Amino acid sequence: MISLDDVRSAATVIAPHVVRTPLLPYGPGWLKPESLQPIGAFKLRGALNALARLENRERGVVAYSSGNHAQAVAFAARLHGVPAAIVMPDNTPAVKIEATKALGAEVFIVGITERVERAEALVAERGAALIPPFDHPDVIAGQGTIGLEILEDLPDVGTVVVPMSGGGLISGVATAIKTLRQDVRVIGAEPALAADIADSLRAGELVHWDPDERARTVADALRDEPSELTWEHISKLVDDVITVTEDEILTAVADLARRARLVAEPSGAVAVAAQAKFGGGVAVVSGGNIDPELLSDVLTNS
Amino acid sequence: MISLDDVRSAATVIAPHVVRTPLLPYGPGWLKPESLQPIGAFKLRGALNALARLENRERGVVAYSSGNHAQAVAFAARLHGVPAAIVMPDNTPAVKIEATKALGAEVFIVGITERVERAEALVAERGAALIPPFDHPDVIAGQGTIGLEILEDLPDVGTVVVPMSGGGLISGVATAIKTLRQDVRVIGAEPALAADIADSLRAGELVHWDPDERARTVADALRDEPSELTWEHISKLVDDVITVTEDEILTAVADLARRARLVAEPSGAVAVAAQAKFGGGVAVVSGGNIDPELLSDVLTNS
Repeated sequence: MISLDDVRSAATVIAPHVVRTPLLPYGPGWLKPESLQPIGAFKLRGALNALARLENRERGVVAYSSGNHAQAVAFAARLHGVPAAIVMPDNTPAVKIEATKALGAEVFIVGITERVERAEALVAERGAALIPPFDHPDVIAGQGTIGLEILEDLPDVGTVVVPMSGGGLISGVATAIKTLRQDVRVIGAEPALAADIADSLRAGELVHWDPDERARTVADALRDEPSELTWEHISKLVDDVITVTEDEILTAVADLARRARLVAEPSGAVAVAAQAKFGGGVAVVSGGNIDPELLSDVLTNS
Repeated sequence: MISLDDVRSAATVIAPHVVRTPLLPYGPGWLKPESLQPIGAFKLRGALNALARLENRERGVVAYSSGNHAQAVAFAARLHGVPAAIVMPDNTPAVKIEATKALGAEVFIVGITERVERAEALVAERGAALIPPFDHPDVIAGQGTIGLEILEDLPDVGTVVVPMSGGGLISGVATAIKTLRQDVRVIGAEPALAADIADSLRAGELVHWDPDERARTVADALRDEPSELTWEHISKLVDDVITVTEDEILTAVADLARRARLVAEPSGAVAVAAQAKFGGGVAVVSGGNIDPELLSDVLTNS
């Protein structure tokens, strides 16, 4: 498991390149708007930390991702002047594919079940380094810097709500918060249509959902499942899980635009949908890369 | 004219109640997203400073405003536990009227030409204090805190672009910036359909446009004209003006949602539209209270 020192060290490495997001008052609670990062998502923190610590990066980096991690690795690679090859599943929103290309990465579109295989082939062909989306200590430590910032800005915080999928974000945030303040509750948020971690915590062991089941939710960045590494953090550090419906997710997207003036993607609004049931605390708005047509539709219908 | 000390003193007074907005990278420049303030606009800064310095506020406060100042005064009054009566013109977007009521203010809707008279009548009837939207040193000093924050976060800033209407925001920001750093250019941005300050600077004296002319722009918060006090600051401190078309304003609203994940109202995007012509510097995103239907429309058509 990663340590508080890993997170503190990551904070020093990434500080010059990330936005120090403020906490925004929101009803009885607060928002941590990671949607304001240059690539529109928290993923930049983990990718920057992992890439900065790579010893052998001159042959480039490879990543597979449904979107935000792709942009994060592309951004970090451009910053360090190394080539990036990104494998994306063919159901990725167009806005995320275009944004990744605009950051200078070479993009490979494949079927969702082929993406790991294709990424590994690229690593073998090029001698490049794979930066996984969540299953890596440096990635987790980078995401954990969000937890440090929340405690700095709101020392008397009672609850932090974090979206869960592969579990990299909540593993890092929970490490930072629970090491410094055991009394703060760390709550995971999941779409009910991809609630494998809620099931796992009830069962006391990692329960697998079929990828086709997890793919049903509109929260396209929350269709992954934990690795052994992130499951270890989650099972030891997370206090509880709140699951939310598809309607609740889209209502949260609309509410964020209307009341917080934030553009959030569905995945980025899942913790806010959970916070609405809970009535307070800090919710991490994890990303803002929504297709404009969907946002437009949500604003008139939710 | 106000002084740097007035702005610094305002910063101390308002710090506990405003969001310390970060600078967000945006193309070759930066954004200062005041749309993230609790009421969705920079106006909170000036209203909080003015209300905190009122000696005789127990009988309440009165304001007239096309929207964001209304919410700012309502928020500040609630914070201090005093009643607020707000006079709003009948062409104010519904979202701003509802938000003002939700903050506990008593709202009076009148024709746009009657608003000052009605506000003065309320002051006389109730013995309440009028908080003007821009024509007051404490209001200007509060808005100027944005300039201090920009210099703190980006010491090597070259240009700051600020929307202009009544001129309170740019008067405060220019006072802070030009006193500390004469080499930083302070540029005003105006809709071409309400470009009375551009005309005034060319003429070397305050030129008046008919209110009906100024009312044509979609930037509904930029339909005012300077007072003698703000004109004195503008004429002495502002380096240049960039005017933007209605199309450029709406394109900036769409770009901010897509690329910066910010919800901006048309008035709030005017400095960003000007920045796009200019290619860098810091643009103040002054507000985010847009009717959701308009945002939805802009996202699919601009």
